[in-house]
Amino acid sequence: MGPHPAVAAIRLAVRRVLHEVLDDARAGEAPLVLVACSGGADSMALASALAFEAPRLGVRAGGITVDHGLQAGSDARAREVAERLTALGLAPVETVAVSVGRAGGPEAAARSARYAALDAAAERHRAGAVLLGHTRDDQAETVLLGLARGSGTRSLSGMAAVSGGLSGSCGAATRYRRPFLAVDRQTTRKACLVQALPVWDDPHNADPAFTRSRVRHEALPVLEKALGRGVVEALARTAQLSRDDADALDAWALEAQRAATRPDGTLEIAALHDLPPAVRRRVLRRAAIAAGAPAGSLFARHIEETDRLITAWRGQSPLNLPGRVEAKRQGGRLVLQQANQ
Amino acid sequence: MGPHPAVAAIRLAVRRVLHEVLDDARAGEAPLVLVACSGGADSMALASALAFEAPRLGVRAGGITVDHGLQAGSDARAREVAERLTALGLAPVETVAVSVGRAGGPEAAARSARYAALDAAAERHRAGAVLLGHTRDDQAETVLLGLARGSGTRSLSGMAAVSGGLSGSCGAATRYRRPFLAVDRQTTRKACLVQALPVWDDPHNADPAFTRSRVRHEALPVLEKALGRGVVEALARTAQLSRDDADALDAWALEAQRAATRPDGTLEIAALHDLPPAVRRRVLRRAAIAAGAPAGSLFARHIEETDRLITAWRGQSPLNLPGRVEAKRQGGRLVLQQANQ
Repeated sequence: MGPHPAVAAIRLAVRRVLHEVLDDARAGEAPLVLVACSGGADSMALASALAFEAPRLGVRAGGITVDHGLQAGSDARAREVAERLTALGLAPVETVAVSVGRAGGPEAAARSARYAALDAAAERHRAGAVLLGHTRDDQAETVLLGLARGSGTRSLSGMAAVSGGLSGSCGAATRYRRPFLAVDRQTTRKACLVQALPVWDDPHNADPAFTRSRVRHEALPVLEKALGRGVVEALARTAQLSRDDADALDAWALEAQRAATRPDGTLEIAALHDLPPAVRRRVLRRAAIAAGAPAGSLFARHIEETDRLITAWRGQSPLNLPGRVEAKRQGGRLVLQQANQ
Repeated sequence: MGPHPAVAAIRLAVRRVLHEVLDDARAGEAPLVLVACSGGADSMALASALAFEAPRLGVRAGGITVDHGLQAGSDARAREVAERLTALGLAPVETVAVSVGRAGGPEAAARSARYAALDAAAERHRAGAVLLGHTRDDQAETVLLGLARGSGTRSLSGMAAVSGGLSGSCGAATRYRRPFLAVDRQTTRKACLVQALPVWDDPHNADPAFTRSRVRHEALPVLEKALGRGVVEALARTAQLSRDDADALDAWALEAQRAATRPDGTLEIAALHDLPPAVRRRVLRRAAIAAGAPAGSLFARHIEETDRLITAWRGQSPLNLPGRVEAKRQGGRLVLQQANQ
């Protein structure tokens, strides 16, 4: 008799990713794969599947647990998680204490601190990959959070199956891998249950002070009731399709920007005018950022106003964009440059 | 003192659209613009703004109300709405009784019957445009309904500001116009109230048997609570951005399909292989439909399997797509053709 279906599902998902890691590894080297584990059901299930699959594929497997220091007793909790990872047979296992700042709100600050610590651990151990336990449900929540920003296709593309670390050693561009993006949360819980793995439910996940928690416990259940079961799956599929669409449009914009840019850095109006609006706006956004406008301060209305210098020219004055960038039309060219101060 | 801000807002929205209609009209002709009016707040507000603006711009303005025959007394209701439209100064005013079938469910069947009747009325009166009262809230609901399908960027693009009729006289491609897509429902209600226009609330709009009604009364309020106010606006913005992105990608796919198609109708693998996946899949979808596969039966998995003939070729057997279309790789070409029966 084979393993429980839930256990089979999580192992299959991890096995696929380990094959990808092996394909990327240098010949003759047994790569080290680390699992980032909070002790919750998703990442405990991930750790258990990694511990099972890695030795069968000649991969070394370790674990990292991050102590965010945000709750009393979090250090003891982290040690306990580390013991469980060791008990699963993972080595090396580390707990890393981080200090969470305030920038961008509590969720963003905790995330920044966590990834910085994981990046550092990956570098220290020369890991070939760090596995993250995000499930299809997390992906659906991320799409809804992106939808609330209303900033288009890229913001609907959720989390990538493979993404890069912030710090840049060789291999960092494919450091993070999310084997469970097509696995639902219920499956990870079930897998822990049937493997008798104790799991820890982070009270933050149920705290309605956090937007993600409200999305999880309030918004998604009501959406399922209104739209029918399958909403989580539809949202996860939207993430994948949106990511592919955004990648294609970014590639087009990059190409169009190159074709329209003159040696002096100005843009040919004639080369931009007939592009589809979606592509032209991406080119303008890229050009404004290249000229020094901070991406986070550049809003749709800035790009639309700049676009009107091309498509609705009636002698407008130069525009002031964020970061002291000025946009103006000069003859047949669009000039984006930072004012000297 | 000018009109109430709500009245000013609806008039401005209609004025802009009437200018577009005039730009499209033949010189020297006063175009006729019809408003489709159910008697609800959105379309009554639209009718009132049309009645106010049209004579000032040299546009003739009439109204159509459709009796779906789905509720007792719907014929009397339609006559009453027609009287109100006439009282606003619109002419011609017509009530059209339709018979609603069952295809696609009650909402889709009612919509089909309604648009067929509006198309016929537009043709009969040689109308330059038919105005529809959909608001920003309707647009947000449509985006959520599209999201539930999980079929990507096009399904998130909501309703178009300008769209074509089904029947094809000259001008039908820009027949339907939605002046209120950036106006919220509350503004249309307020505009009716301050103009003392009686409005009728269709009980179907509050009936939880209808998906759209559940989205309106259950899903959107909870999403606003979880994600913050501004969700409706974010969804409407998503519609516009998604529409532009989908248009750009469709244009790319059309171009790529032309470039890859040989005189015998087969597709060059080499010309498809390096396209971004989002574009390649659109080309394959177009080609499958051109070969005879019904669009509604062609699912993502069909296109993905076909794509693997290009990107993961290992000698697969020919694929059977809906509509008896066979997809196979033949040398350096992809052949999509309908089997003879």
